[in-house]
Amino acid sequence: MNWACPLPLRHYPHIVMGHGGGGRLSADLVEHLILPAFGGQSAGALGDSTVVPPIAGRLAISTDSYVVRPLFFPGGSIGELAVNGTINDLAMSGARPLYLTAGFILEEGFPLATLAEVARRMGEAARQAGVRIVAGDTKVVGKGQADGLFINTAGIGELRPGVDIGPCQARPGDVVLVSGTMGDHGMAILCAREDLEFDGQLESDCAALHELTEVMLDAGTIHVLRDPTRGGLAASLNEIARSSQVGIVLDEARVPIGEKVQSACELLGLDPLHVANEGKLVAVLAAESADAVLAAMRRHPLGRHAARIGSVTGQHPGVLAAKTSIGGTRVIPMPLGEQLPRIC
Amino acid sequence: MNWACPLPLRHYPHIVMGHGGGGRLSADLVEHLILPAFGGQSAGALGDSTVVPPIAGRLAISTDSYVVRPLFFPGGSIGELAVNGTINDLAMSGARPLYLTAGFILEEGFPLATLAEVARRMGEAARQAGVRIVAGDTKVVGKGQADGLFINTAGIGELRPGVDIGPCQARPGDVVLVSGTMGDHGMAILCAREDLEFDGQLESDCAALHELTEVMLDAGTIHVLRDPTRGGLAASLNEIARSSQVGIVLDEARVPIGEKVQSACELLGLDPLHVANEGKLVAVLAAESADAVLAAMRRHPLGRHAARIGSVTGQHPGVLAAKTSIGGTRVIPMPLGEQLPRIC
Repeated sequence: MNWACPLPLRHYPHIVMGHGGGGRLSADLVEHLILPAFGGQSAGALGDSTVVPPIAGRLAISTDSYVVRPLFFPGGSIGELAVNGTINDLAMSGARPLYLTAGFILEEGFPLATLAEVARRMGEAARQAGVRIVAGDTKVVGKGQADGLFINTAGIGELRPGVDIGPCQARPGDVVLVSGTMGDHGMAILCAREDLEFDGQLESDCAALHELTEVMLDAGTIHVLRDPTRGGLAASLNEIARSSQVGIVLDEARVPIGEKVQSACELLGLDPLHVANEGKLVAVLAAESADAVLAAMRRHPLGRHAARIGSVTGQHPGVLAAKTSIGGTRVIPMPLGEQLPRIC
Repeated sequence: MNWACPLPLRHYPHIVMGHGGGGRLSADLVEHLILPAFGGQSAGALGDSTVVPPIAGRLAISTDSYVVRPLFFPGGSIGELAVNGTINDLAMSGARPLYLTAGFILEEGFPLATLAEVARRMGEAARQAGVRIVAGDTKVVGKGQADGLFINTAGIGELRPGVDIGPCQARPGDVVLVSGTMGDHGMAILCAREDLEFDGQLESDCAALHELTEVMLDAGTIHVLRDPTRGGLAASLNEIARSSQVGIVLDEARVPIGEKVQSACELLGLDPLHVANEGKLVAVLAAESADAVLAAMRRHPLGRHAARIGSVTGQHPGVLAAKTSIGGTRVIPMPLGEQLPRIC
């Protein structure tokens, strides 16, 4: 049997089983490490539940777990991902993110200093995004029963009146936009994990997209928004084609891809359309709104490299086709799994 | 490098890395296993985020991760726990639970049939409680990087108008009630894990408490509600004493404890006041409301064995004292950790 640790371990610099026991060690961990690290971004208690004022509009609700390895990588960490990823899921409904919850699953022996740094980055990302972490939970499992640290966040946002965005809203004649270069996050993780260097470091694009979506919604009517994370742009566009029962034609040469990502993908035999992003979005909207929305995106720092990359057709419903740079056409299937596990 | 599995594994009866990749395998898992198992309790997509209608009142927000071992035990499973536990956290604010999110972290090799059964129990528990699971997420980590299955749920509930319940609301002169016997969940888990038998099987008390709290709120004004999970009644009452800066005097002989739990605790040298519950609550309220609330509790199936177990005093603020059955008084400190790890 696995009893709680004895008293002297209270000041041990690593997670012990008792930190998940709901007693004094748990309370200390929350009060003296997590709450200060969140830096005033929490309601204070992180207790059983937190009460917040009424929200006038419809609500968007979302959740994601984060298991990325390594925990820290160029451009971010599991902390920023856990905050921005869930914010982005809310933003893709056209919602303004308001509140997050944070659940930690910790492996016995995990360094408290690392936990504090992850929590600090979560607090900082939440503050930057204007979102509050209002409830939390900490569980501890034995050595070898988890891989250091997993985080789950859930989010609540308020929808704008009149917004109706969803993966089944794409219509023939619509235009497809992306907010910037594809593949940065996945390639940064891959290179960090395998210690690869390509003419300088690749950086994750991890960012919160809700301000970009706000300026887009101000500029025109959007039918579909999606952040192409796991499975990359190929998975997102396949999902949209299937949900809306339309065909999508991608103009492959127009998809923005950074030089370093491009050469790394070529070297490793990966398709950048399948590589994950964490700070980019794809939008489907009526052709008449496209210029105004594209211009608005390009004025925003996270949309500087926004581009029109394709169109929606009534032909080949459910299928994503690409016009290749040499004039041919190929079908891009839904990826089966993911080229690289544990990217988020 | 750890690539996604090849095509034939699509019909493999165990979790493969590709089930967490955001591609076709992920979509299949959600569409063909999780959604049917949830049984219409979900919004359909379990996609990035879900939109729900406006909620008029203040909101309660809560989250918990579940890492209990074994996954199935007498009286419940990790599935019922994940639903009822988060419902109870909301109910302890005086809220009516409305929506849940569900995040799964799966270990490569975990049997799909077991996942389906856990999800089915989650759907059933949500249906029984009148709560909808509206958003979800599935991540997969490699063999040995997690212990089978972890679940996170977050919950959103609507507060009754006028309700103001919290751990710092206890006042001298208040009365302490519990809704039933203490220690059932923790002892059931311990016995299931260690294959102990005590004159018949011990069963977890896992249950959703929001209907019980509704009848209590109808019957009188409540100052504090708490579900004594990890750390048991001792941790909950210590927290209340500390948060409210009051003393609590427990009449130990009046704390309801089942015979089997009592004898198991004696045999193992455990204190039932420190053992976790998953379907019980402790309430602190003004003395003049106590009889009406206690009577209302006893009319509800989950409050049949409700009892008045103590009182709040202005003396010894922050301290929980117990009058023992032989007439003495002892201080019951906040437990340091938990006697038994991974009980929820």
